[in-house]
Amino acid sequence: MLSTMQDGNLSIGTLLRHGSRVHAGSTVSTWTGDGARTTTFAEIGADAARLANALRGLGVTGDQRVATFMWNNAEHQTAYLAVPAMGAVLHTLNLRLFPDQLTYIANHAEDKVVIVDATVAPLLAKVLPTFQTVEHVIVANGPKDALQAPDGIQVHSWTELLAGQSADFDWPDVDERAAAAMCYTSGTTGNPKGVVYSHRSIWLHSMQVCMSDGLGLSPADTSLVIVPQFHAMSWGMPYAAFMCGASLVMPDRFLQPEPLLAMIEALKPTHSAAVPTIWQGVLAALEQNPRDISSLREVVVGGAACPPSMMHTFAEKYGVHIVHAWGMTETSPLGSVCRPPAGRSEEETWRYRYTQGRLPAGVRARLVGDDGAEVPWDGVSVGELEVRGPWITGSYYRLDEDGDGSEKFHDGWLRTGDVGTLTPDGFLTLTDRSKDIIKSGGEWISSVELENHVMAHPSVAEAAVIGVPDAKWDERPLVTVVLREGASATPEELRGFLADKVAKWQVPENWAFIPEVPKTSVGKFDKKVLRAQHAEGRLDVTHLD
Amino acid sequence: MLSTMQDGNLSIGTLLRHGSRVHAGSTVSTWTGDGARTTTFAEIGADAARLANALRGLGVTGDQRVATFMWNNAEHQTAYLAVPAMGAVLHTLNLRLFPDQLTYIANHAEDKVVIVDATVAPLLAKVLPTFQTVEHVIVANGPKDALQAPDGIQVHSWTELLAGQSADFDWPDVDERAAAAMCYTSGTTGNPKGVVYSHRSIWLHSMQVCMSDGLGLSPADTSLVIVPQFHAMSWGMPYAAFMCGASLVMPDRFLQPEPLLAMIEALKPTHSAAVPTIWQGVLAALEQNPRDISSLREVVVGGAACPPSMMHTFAEKYGVHIVHAWGMTETSPLGSVCRPPAGRSEEETWRYRYTQGRLPAGVRARLVGDDGAEVPWDGVSVGELEVRGPWITGSYYRLDEDGDGSEKFHDGWLRTGDVGTLTPDGFLTLTDRSKDIIKSGGEWISSVELENHVMAHPSVAEAAVIGVPDAKWDERPLVTVVLREGASATPEELRGFLADKVAKWQVPENWAFIPEVPKTSVGKFDKKVLRAQHAEGRLDVTHLD
Repeated sequence: MLSTMQDGNLSIGTLLRHGSRVHAGSTVSTWTGDGARTTTFAEIGADAARLANALRGLGVTGDQRVATFMWNNAEHQTAYLAVPAMGAVLHTLNLRLFPDQLTYIANHAEDKVVIVDATVAPLLAKVLPTFQTVEHVIVANGPKDALQAPDGIQVHSWTELLAGQSADFDWPDVDERAAAAMCYTSGTTGNPKGVVYSHRSIWLHSMQVCMSDGLGLSPADTSLVIVPQFHAMSWGMPYAAFMCGASLVMPDRFLQPEPLLAMIEALKPTHSAAVPTIWQGVLAALEQNPRDISSLREVVVGGAACPPSMMHTFAEKYGVHIVHAWGMTETSPLGSVCRPPAGRSEEETWRYRYTQGRLPAGVRARLVGDDGAEVPWDGVSVGELEVRGPWITGSYYRLDEDGDGSEKFHDGWLRTGDVGTLTPDGFLTLTDRSKDIIKSGGEWISSVELENHVMAHPSVAEAAVIGVPDAKWDERPLVTVVLREGASATPEELRGFLADKVAKWQVPENWAFIPEVPKTSVGKFDKKVLRAQHAEGRLDVTHLD
Repeated sequence: MLSTMQDGNLSIGTLLRHGSRVHAGSTVSTWTGDGARTTTFAEIGADAARLANALRGLGVTGDQRVATFMWNNAEHQTAYLAVPAMGAVLHTLNLRLFPDQLTYIANHAEDKVVIVDATVAPLLAKVLPTFQTVEHVIVANGPKDALQAPDGIQVHSWTELLAGQSADFDWPDVDERAAAAMCYTSGTTGNPKGVVYSHRSIWLHSMQVCMSDGLGLSPADTSLVIVPQFHAMSWGMPYAAFMCGASLVMPDRFLQPEPLLAMIEALKPTHSAAVPTIWQGVLAALEQNPRDISSLREVVVGGAACPPSMMHTFAEKYGVHIVHAWGMTETSPLGSVCRPPAGRSEEETWRYRYTQGRLPAGVRARLVGDDGAEVPWDGVSVGELEVRGPWITGSYYRLDEDGDGSEKFHDGWLRTGDVGTLTPDGFLTLTDRSKDIIKSGGEWISSVELENHVMAHPSVAEAAVIGVPDAKWDERPLVTVVLREGASATPEELRGFLADKVAKWQVPENWAFIPEVPKTSVGKFDKKVLRAQHAEGRLDVTHLD
């Protein structure tokens, strides 16, 4: 028995039409260094039509890929809407990737057009000769001669290209399961992997962003979107804003604490989204040079856990609630958002706030232990988090050429590579990446927990823990330590420092002092490099009895 | 290019699993007259499995219809989840329909099972002999002998039937476009028409209920659901609650102001939903006998516009925000919700609050004038509202047998039969039903506006205006008037009373005094009957020059 309901597609075209009409007066303000330029959703809608007409004119048809190499700004927002709404696929290139990764990604996605901000054109120019499928580059927010392009690639000015175009476009009715946008994960192993979002997944995810158990974005909000538009679709904010009418503040390239504080004071956002390190910097600047940030009701953090002390300072000193969310490129990204249950004591509410949050109805989760069996949701049992749902990826783009990627999936579930616990009421606490867990004699040792304890020692600047093969225990922890300048400590002393902090069998016996911890392009500890160095015998390891 | 996203179904089964696990501790409290019985979402989940097992045992397979003839209570909530999740179709029968309408509906839907509350079993008993396809009746909340059933229909006790069943059920993966639930509209013309909701439409609508620009339902809420579960799926509250974890207070048969106030005081709901007349009664009772209703943050009204004076009294005296929403059975029902834009003056905010609200992204709208052309969104131009979207019906169930129902649709849009205006920012103001608009010499006259003016005369108890044929103007208004007991007034006097209230050409020349205005089963003016009486010459009309 079929329902009598209408069978329309959930598409970016409908979001574009809705936002630019019903919320015509909502705004996108782009920071310019000493102020902001502001455009309305109605104007973004007209520019999206102009951009779509221009791209058609450049020969973009079907589901060809249009890449962006841009900061967060009004032009990037325009591309976010125009490219999928015309049926093409938006590919956000990460400005911070290493050149060879950019080359791999652009060629793998077969980008036909790149839209670039003039301020980062020199960065693009370095890799553009290696982009094999690109035919056109559109330079936004500056002169087109900001870009030196090789022969065979035509360079256009955004302003000139759009100037003559019609502000109407006959947006097609796109199948909701068709590709709308793609983003490659900056994995620390192997080549980057492409996640391809559908119109449907973006629509449903946008609804989740606006839901009370999501980010609660509303027409009354103005959101300062610090998380880059090239990182997991800016956590869905650009699309959710057009769904609900929230205004946007876009920082462009001004991501340092002082300009961020200037934006907050000048444009009075009610909401913001960024990784914890950004807020750490903002807090430090704020403590030195007081500013009015009272407009902020809530800021969402993801990408890493926020130190509790920082959450308390923001709440108690500045009246700003920091809300934890968990997700990844593969999960669109909202996987969980922390909304503590009502009616609990303040202390209990804070304990909830420290977690990565609760599962929404669109994300089904399970924890899988070392033996492949599900572990209970008891807040204690540890397992790898696996998720599934309508905005979770089920595969990677064209991965069969490099391998089938099947190790990332498990009977239709995405293996997140994150390890942690779930409470009976669906609150997630993540402690480690699964590859960073040390499997010692059938028990799991958290490398992150060991690192945090070692880094609390006054002589230690940084510490990274990896698992190394062990004849008796399968694997044991090796602690690599960077000492503070001028400080000294012995392995025995550091081992002693851990004695009352972790279980006796978890105390590491393998120690190595190193000059610095190798980092990935996004600043995370690159344990792959450390493991390789150890395997090649390049680490000077002290083994204590 | 297909996306890499997972392709799962949006289904009631996933809502049931999510709510009963992640929100296991949320509650459904059913009022018993002097208190409440409370059950958790986990227990509702277990009972849903027991009910599904029992229904399978009674032979329910495929998409057979299981009807309910029940108040709002925990058992009705259980049926809401179990029936669609097992793949069958929930059919909510309206307790207030006339017997011949119930007979028509149950036979048209081919209901196989009816679940009935013992307190309304006598009502069902009257019509049950005319139900041609029903094989089983399950009596809930009372002894099964509360129901006298004809031979051939087996009667079961809910409690006994569920007692022996397993609390596990292997819920099928149901196609999201399959039928989940159905509800017939109590139209004032022709037979009732069946709207069949899909799993997908209910899922998307539930998200909208939880969105900030929808009802904003959240895990921190407890909602007192006064709107019956047999009226437009209780405005989606039962499903939205399982999506976000909001607790529910169900009033069962206790819908009078005093017990409603007792529930609010005892169970402290934060949210509620009901038609304005309910709140009018609650307010009158509250003014006589003060109660603590401070737990309520917001109440949603729909079905009719709320008098501004009542909205102000609730806000200013009791701190309760009344939020207008517009919808109908055919729209799931959320079509618009009134969330005034931020940053406006108090006066302007109030003007927004009086409207029926703003269109969400899932509802596309247009206004169509008398000539079939779209009228502009200027807040002034009047047209019939037409809507489309993924939770809007595109047809009626098996209507081809009585006609194709095509007059209700227009190029894929639902003709709502409501007439009004839209502002440039998508706020809807409805003034009339299209069939109640009087088309006089190419201009439209609002019958509702005339009625409101006539009813303001001290001698008038009720007034209903219909359009009657006119040789010169096509149609002119006829005012039927019920005088207050002991009062008197002449047509001339009433016409004079309108002189400074409406445009001269709108002042009616046709008047008839009647003993009472005929009403529909839900208490609305039944103008169909008045038109028939006029056509048959049964009204004593005075025609003024």
